[in-house]
Amino acid sequence: MTDTVPVGLCRDFDRLAATGVLQRLAEHPFDLTAPAALTPERISRYRSSAAGLDLLYATQRIDEATLDALQSLADESRVVEQFFLMRQGAVLNRIEGFASENRQVLHTACRDLFAEAPLAPAATAQARAELAKLRTFLAELDNGQLVNAAGAPFTELVHVGIGGSDLGPRALYLALAAFATPGRRVHFISNVDPDDAAAVLAGLDLSRTLVNVVSKSGTTLETLTNEELVRQAFVAAGLAPERHFLAVTGQGSPMDNPARYLRSFYMFDYIGGRYSATSMVGAVMLGFALGDEQVVEILRGAHAMDLAAAEPAIRHNPALLLALLGIWNRNFLGCDTVAVLPYSQALVRFAAHLQQLDMESNGKSVSRGGRELAWQSGPVLWGEPGTNGQHAFYQLLHQGTTIVPTEFIGFRQNQLDKDLLLQGTTSQEKLVANLLAQILALATGQPHENPNQRFAGNRPSALLIADRLTPYAMGALLALYEAKVVFQGFLWNINSFDQEGVQLGKKLANGLLAHFSAHRQNFLYNGSEADPRGWALLKAAGLLDEHV
Amino acid sequence: MTDTVPVGLCRDFDRLAATGVLQRLAEHPFDLTAPAALTPERISRYRSSAAGLDLLYATQRIDEATLDALQSLADESRVVEQFFLMRQGAVLNRIEGFASENRQVLHTACRDLFAEAPLAPAATAQARAELAKLRTFLAELDNGQLVNAAGAPFTELVHVGIGGSDLGPRALYLALAAFATPGRRVHFISNVDPDDAAAVLAGLDLSRTLVNVVSKSGTTLETLTNEELVRQAFVAAGLAPERHFLAVTGQGSPMDNPARYLRSFYMFDYIGGRYSATSMVGAVMLGFALGDEQVVEILRGAHAMDLAAAEPAIRHNPALLLALLGIWNRNFLGCDTVAVLPYSQALVRFAAHLQQLDMESNGKSVSRGGRELAWQSGPVLWGEPGTNGQHAFYQLLHQGTTIVPTEFIGFRQNQLDKDLLLQGTTSQEKLVANLLAQILALATGQPHENPNQRFAGNRPSALLIADRLTPYAMGALLALYEAKVVFQGFLWNINSFDQEGVQLGKKLANGLLAHFSAHRQNFLYNGSEADPRGWALLKAAGLLDEHV
Repeated sequence: MTDTVPVGLCRDFDRLAATGVLQRLAEHPFDLTAPAALTPERISRYRSSAAGLDLLYATQRIDEATLDALQSLADESRVVEQFFLMRQGAVLNRIEGFASENRQVLHTACRDLFAEAPLAPAATAQARAELAKLRTFLAELDNGQLVNAAGAPFTELVHVGIGGSDLGPRALYLALAAFATPGRRVHFISNVDPDDAAAVLAGLDLSRTLVNVVSKSGTTLETLTNEELVRQAFVAAGLAPERHFLAVTGQGSPMDNPARYLRSFYMFDYIGGRYSATSMVGAVMLGFALGDEQVVEILRGAHAMDLAAAEPAIRHNPALLLALLGIWNRNFLGCDTVAVLPYSQALVRFAAHLQQLDMESNGKSVSRGGRELAWQSGPVLWGEPGTNGQHAFYQLLHQGTTIVPTEFIGFRQNQLDKDLLLQGTTSQEKLVANLLAQILALATGQPHENPNQRFAGNRPSALLIADRLTPYAMGALLALYEAKVVFQGFLWNINSFDQEGVQLGKKLANGLLAHFSAHRQNFLYNGSEADPRGWALLKAAGLLDEHV
Repeated sequence: MTDTVPVGLCRDFDRLAATGVLQRLAEHPFDLTAPAALTPERISRYRSSAAGLDLLYATQRIDEATLDALQSLADESRVVEQFFLMRQGAVLNRIEGFASENRQVLHTACRDLFAEAPLAPAATAQARAELAKLRTFLAELDNGQLVNAAGAPFTELVHVGIGGSDLGPRALYLALAAFATPGRRVHFISNVDPDDAAAVLAGLDLSRTLVNVVSKSGTTLETLTNEELVRQAFVAAGLAPERHFLAVTGQGSPMDNPARYLRSFYMFDYIGGRYSATSMVGAVMLGFALGDEQVVEILRGAHAMDLAAAEPAIRHNPALLLALLGIWNRNFLGCDTVAVLPYSQALVRFAAHLQQLDMESNGKSVSRGGRELAWQSGPVLWGEPGTNGQHAFYQLLHQGTTIVPTEFIGFRQNQLDKDLLLQGTTSQEKLVANLLAQILALATGQPHENPNQRFAGNRPSALLIADRLTPYAMGALLALYEAKVVFQGFLWNINSFDQEGVQLGKKLANGLLAHFSAHRQNFLYNGSEADPRGWALLKAAGLLDEHV
């Protein structure tokens, strides 16, 4: 089905009865600093599990009444029903009554491979076909059928993309590099800053290098610019780009051209960039690095979480529960930001991916009915790995004047088998002990006669913990955050799948580029009359004097 | 002199006359969306320069009256006088009437080398002595006097540190790697996550590797743990650690031990970790990578900015002006966060450094007089390089419900000499055109009949721009942000130089580690009675079942 969601399902946040209840509850939120607040019973009861992930949430400022009200909020908004309709192919990327993208939202279809009867069969069939193409390609690399002009195997892959074609794939690669096939390495170019491409290419043996160019439209300026820079390097090295370059793009896009690319893999308009890590956008690079079986493991973990997100009882649906706790902190306790703090160095870029996923999806001011929001939507999401963060910005988390809700991520075991017993404990134990200690410190605080050593406490946190950061666990974690963001969008009644907010900057940048281009051709060119602001800014920034 | 600052200089923010004036002005802040607001005259007038950096601030929500009131605020707080006293060695790291660190704050003394009469001569003499030791060491590396046991030169350096011993040095190295001596590479280990060290060591030729261990106290748990991991790797490779390991530490610390280290370089208690990048904490690693002349260039740029920060007229003091604009946005326009967005891939970790510098310094709730603050202190600082960010979280910056003030950083030329003319413009031009376009879009917004394509505008930004990201420019930029943070701390009347907020987590982590250690020795150990919360959290997180 490709129906839109029935209008009755899109209810404005401020018109839900549960918001009134929650507002009253927020006048006296649960006090985590009270002596008997954080009991062992509470700690063990406030735990929700799915797909190998446990969510511990005893250190949120909630009680049973709050949870019941959040359940009512979810029920009233019918968010689980909307999530199911999304997976079936409803046209959810739209604004009622106004021009909009009018698209389905089917990133989950990439993972519905394991279902006997996929919910969106056509999309899943397309995902299956692309995965089969990828497996053939990877097998040819493995068995020596596909080699360079000198007959040597490819050992390097340069992934060229930006935004969703970069952040998600990069975060997944770094998270799982411990599982990479020995002798294969992946590099990333994303920034239009020419120094980025130059730094990556320096020292690469291009003859052994595949270049994976990722752009759905085939027209992304930054990506095409970087592709061209890399192509010139290949030509300069006497290598034929069409034997090295891969395309991940929309069927029929300007990049869908066998004369210029060794292989093309397709992405589809029903998957937005920031939701595309489990499509070919991530899979081609990850398949090269990790092998196809590990890619399937990622999909399997993501699918398990997609299924778990169908559970209507919020206490048994970690993705939905995390979404609702976020709304409690954002809309009722008034927090503008949320910090994601993974205690795993491999997740070093996961927060950067979530930043796009969350802020581009839910940084909106207009409802799905075209109404200006009378409530807060998505917060600023930020974060860095612990324990590094502890030695950096945690001071503010503990003693600043602004409350920052935190989402910790941890693992019971580390990825690699290297560890060290020092002073009676392993490094992994030191890592998780620090993690749990932060949770306790933020929640309970500490009275002290020296005001500078006082901790007010009542700073809410949640913990996501899994056994080990495997491809399966990574898939589940990724899908959990995707579902969290989608659920929050449904609750706020916004379109989490478009990004009109990036258009104005693009338009103005083209105007400024026209000045550069005209100025290059004619030194007497003066843009001040046609565009007084832009021209004045170029001059004030000293950008018009440098050209020769 | 080592006097404390006269009590009269420490005035509470809410007792300054200018705050009342600013509050009234904030009721009707300058409207950047008005048709005649952002004139070419305004754009060219709102520009302040020092040490090769230009600050453009026409797109802040201010007018002449606001600037005058901000000037009064700075005058009333006597912040420039306090900055001068700091550079002279006043004991500014203290809380009046309560136990505190009671230390001087003399990071500027590292840069006062170029002055004929340094303001804090003893500290500058110490900096000079350490720099001389470093030059000797680097010369011995260069002339082949200092080689490995096999007579081969050292090509790799592993920098082991955390927090201020990692973030600043790492940000500077990545910023300036384009200037590195060919054949020399630097690697970083910071996280106690054992996967971090393992990933760095994999593939290194240890026989050619120096290891630079950085810890002021010589007792930082994460750093000592990682050092031990690396030492074991050297021993396993049949190499003598004392021929490879360098120490940067406090004189007389447990790490100040010639039997274990090839060389020791000293840091002093009057420089806090987050302010230490221009001390030996950064200089040893940077000297290895870039050579001593480039290190001196960094110091020279920083010194130039330290001098410029002494200017009392805020319109001619970019560091102070940026601090005051931040206060305007934070305390009067109510913004909880600030985004730092460098349009240079080399500055990829600069925001992470600033996160520590700013949030650890000013994430405080207690005044220098021990009073609980009745006003907001430091905001959440976050950011990623553009243009990548444009394809990620800029949606929220333009159309979210939360206003995020932004500080853009740009350069007129790129670092490396590789660029490409495509569609009439270079990549560098595309980069800066995008930067300026964002500034205009955020400020002016765009009306539209489709509510989803409306941009409200009035989102304040500032631009820092320099010719090129050289060591000198990097030093100036670093010192500008150091001064900004210090000025804001003076204005908020807080101690920007301690970090009591990290202590509680450390204490609680030690308690949890004791459980791990006891549980390892005795499987019947039960910590629930002594520590019901901690034990319950360990159990709920599934961390007590895994040990064998």
